[in-house]
Amino acid sequence: RLIELLAPLHSADIADVLEQISGAEREALLGLWGTEFDGDVLSELDENLRADLIETLPADVMSSALKDLESDDVVDLVEDLEQLQQTRVLDALEQADRVVVEQSLQYPEESAGRLMQRELVMAPAHWTVGDAIDHLRSENDLPYRFYVVVIVDPKMQPIGKVALSDLMSSPRDTMLATIMDEHFHVIPVTQTQEDVAYAFNQYHMVSAPVVDEEGRLVGVITIDDAMLVLDEEAEEDLRLLNGVGDESLTDSVLDTTRQRFPWLGVNLITAVLASVVISQFSDTIEAIVALAVLMPIVASMGGNAGTQTLTVAVRALATKDLTASNAMRVIRREVMVGLLNGLVFAVIIGVVGVVWFGSAMLGVVLGLAMIANLLIAGMAGILIPITLTKLKIDPALASGAFVTTVTDVVGFFAFLGLAAVMLT
Amino acid sequence: RLIELLAPLHSADIADVLEQISGAEREALLGLWGTEFDGDVLSELDENLRADLIETLPADVMSSALKDLESDDVVDLVEDLEQLQQTRVLDALEQADRVVVEQSLQYPEESAGRLMQRELVMAPAHWTVGDAIDHLRSENDLPYRFYVVVIVDPKMQPIGKVALSDLMSSPRDTMLATIMDEHFHVIPVTQTQEDVAYAFNQYHMVSAPVVDEEGRLVGVITIDDAMLVLDEEAEEDLRLLNGVGDESLTDSVLDTTRQRFPWLGVNLITAVLASVVISQFSDTIEAIVALAVLMPIVASMGGNAGTQTLTVAVRALATKDLTASNAMRVIRREVMVGLLNGLVFAVIIGVVGVVWFGSAMLGVVLGLAMIANLLIAGMAGILIPITLTKLKIDPALASGAFVTTVTDVVGFFAFLGLAAVMLT
Ligand SMILES: [Mg+2]
Ligand SMILES: [Mg+2]
Ligand SMILES: [Mg+2]
Ligand SMILES: [Mg+2]
Ligand SMILES: [Mg+2]
Ligand SMILES: [Mg+2]
Ligand SMILES: [Mg+2]
Ligand SMILES: [Mg+2]
Ligand SMILES: [Mg+2]
Ligand SMILES: [Mg+2]
Ligand SMILES: [Mg+2]
Ligand SMILES: [Mg+2]
Ligand SMILES: [Mg+2]
Repeated sequence: RLIELLAPLHSADIADVLEQISGAEREALLGLWGTEFDGDVLSELDENLRADLIETLPADVMSSALKDLESDDVVDLVEDLEQLQQTRVLDALEQADRVVVEQSLQYPEESAGRLMQRELVMAPAHWTVGDAIDHLRSENDLPYRFYVVVIVDPKMQPIGKVALSDLMSSPRDTMLATIMDEHFHVIPVTQTQEDVAYAFNQYHMVSAPVVDEEGRLVGVITIDDAMLVLDEEAEEDLRLLNGVGDESLTDSVLDTTRQRFPWLGVNLITAVLASVVISQFSDTIEAIVALAVLMPIVASMGGNAGTQTLTVAVRALATKDLTASNAMRVIRREVMVGLLNGLVFAVIIGVVGVVWFGSAMLGVVLGLAMIANLLIAGMAGILIPITLTKLKIDPALASGAFVTTVTDVVGFFAFLGLAAVMLT
Repeated sequence: RLIELLAPLHSADIADVLEQISGAEREALLGLWGTEFDGDVLSELDENLRADLIETLPADVMSSALKDLESDDVVDLVEDLEQLQQTRVLDALEQADRVVVEQSLQYPEESAGRLMQRELVMAPAHWTVGDAIDHLRSENDLPYRFYVVVIVDPKMQPIGKVALSDLMSSPRDTMLATIMDEHFHVIPVTQTQEDVAYAFNQYHMVSAPVVDEEGRLVGVITIDDAMLVLDEEAEEDLRLLNGVGDESLTDSVLDTTRQRFPWLGVNLITAVLASVVISQFSDTIEAIVALAVLMPIVASMGGNAGTQTLTVAVRALATKDLTASNAMRVIRREVMVGLLNGLVFAVIIGVVGVVWFGSAMLGVVLGLAMIANLLIAGMAGILIPITLTKLKIDPALASGAFVTTVTDVVGFFAFLGLAAVMLT
């Protein structure tokens, strides 16, 4: 009855249900399933949960679950498992599938080689449309779904591709050579998955051939997998920029606490650094307590402006819209924007300072510190990610802490320093 | 010569070049192009730049540029134009195309109706594979690219779809009814583009039929467009969470400053609110200046912890991993994580306080304030986005300012309040 109930659901939705129920409910459900458990569900599951689940699956359930998966999905399943579990899964595969999966695992993590499926349809250029259709009709072991026929030369190098829509709408005697698209995008097997996803989105591709160092066809990547990667990489940038690691909703309290700890630790060091700056001006603050009341404003505005610039920069780097050719123009723009917003908010906050504390000089100090900090915020927000990219460090990873450190330190120093000089 | 040089480039790359060069270079390039200017390039261009460009294009260049575009791309081109420009573009279309585009424009912005193309391939269920192939071979006006044949009943309601790969690999006398997939996802024409992109990614679809309120087939959405939307929506969440609007790198200094101003304005109000809290404790700070030195630490740690939870929550809401069925479990987890990290950092910061200022009580106050703020941060970080979602407000939009306001106010109030009670 359970299986009947779940039958109309897509495996991705079943996986989501499994993720959202509690651990006890999950075990009960899986017990009921037995060997009917579907490999597709396994490959839709969140990675952390999947690893737990694979540990508990009996060998026969595993074998039958894996049978219908394409090679790329099996690779995705096993790549994050521990050695022991990995061997267990590989042993559950048929010999031919196993070899193919082990080959893919040779390629670096997060590379095209891990993403591609080995099952593909190819044909020589001298075939006619009729030849190709007859071949497809007689072949039993076709990929589950495919969108192009890759045209290869005798050395197995791809020389073109024919979309199925073009194949279908051409007469049987047409040579493939005459309808094949020769301007097609080829993906090197060692390309990063991030670049693969970028290429799919940029060129609106639905599938792309993958080639090895000698230019020989080794597999094909389909857009559904590229779309998942695009989504994952966007999530990664969002997380890194906001100081969260690769946790998931199904993680335990302890795992989550541990995951978030290092990010908070870095922030603590940053905050203590800012405190050290403040402590240099203890005497000034003791003399004018209004400074303690107002000092977080300048720092917070700088932090916000810096994060704005940083966010735009990190995103533009990810979409390859920010390149060497327009970097100078964008840097100049950010500095100008920082200066302009600094001027505007200097006036606003200056007035607030004067009205609240009745001291014109205090207003001037607030305004000047605001200008200085928003200007520096703009510069830090654009220069730090660009520099990190040049150093081949992920600009989303380290830049958030850098930028807020700069804006905190400059914010407190400028405000308290100016106050020390101009007000005492 | 210029056209020769650009010929091997994909239109998306040409559009990127146009975005990255300066305004003067852009004008020169477009002048050289003349009527050879390609409509595809126009549809790849960034929206703001595109609107500027359309204004300057002569009518004949526009007509020839639009001729080869599919209906969804024309809709995307015109929907953001001002009335006058919109009419100009529509006038440049042939009559039949114009009607179709105007129909799509009737549907709400960011809905499936705006995203779908009207060009599609359909067939009745009683056709054989041979009938379908013959039809495709004789039809001159096929979509540029398609991946399925939609099977419709006499009322034009889709009842199945046949992937081209299945069509190609079946014998000519097979009835489409026997190979069609009846478990296919249908998209209502008024569905939001965000939900459309989610469905494509969740179900690994390559194209999906769009139906009107009566369930009749009105168009088809292809994955390349869904992938662009997925990327745009991820970018939107990243921007909103980090306080940036829908600006682009090609915007001028003034436009960018104006765009960022309101976000900084909200932050200023937040910051002033925190200052008001601090000002209530002026006497305490005057008595113990160490408080002014240390108080930003507690607020900053709370802001960070709150942002961590918020980021995870907003992303999980976007991927529909956080739902009513697991909300309570996730809330409980976030509260526990906040408490645990609060305890750990209470000890660390307490020790720092004692060592730095030599006062055990100061260390205790710091530690207690840290626990309180990280606990509240976890609660605010999860409850605010969930509540906003229930109120049908985008959780990414308003929650960042809310959460940091809460953690600033609580952070300063807890630390200074405890200090006032325990240290004076
Ligand atoms: Mg899932
Ligand atoms: Mg993987
Ligand atoms: Mg795949
Ligand atoms: Mg990245
Ligand atoms: Mg990455
Ligand atoms: Mg681009
Ligand atoms: Mg572009
Ligand atoms: Mg298109
Ligand atoms: Mg649009
Ligand atoms: Mg399209
Ligand atoms: Mg959204
Ligand atoms: Mg949206
Ligand atoms: Mg999901």
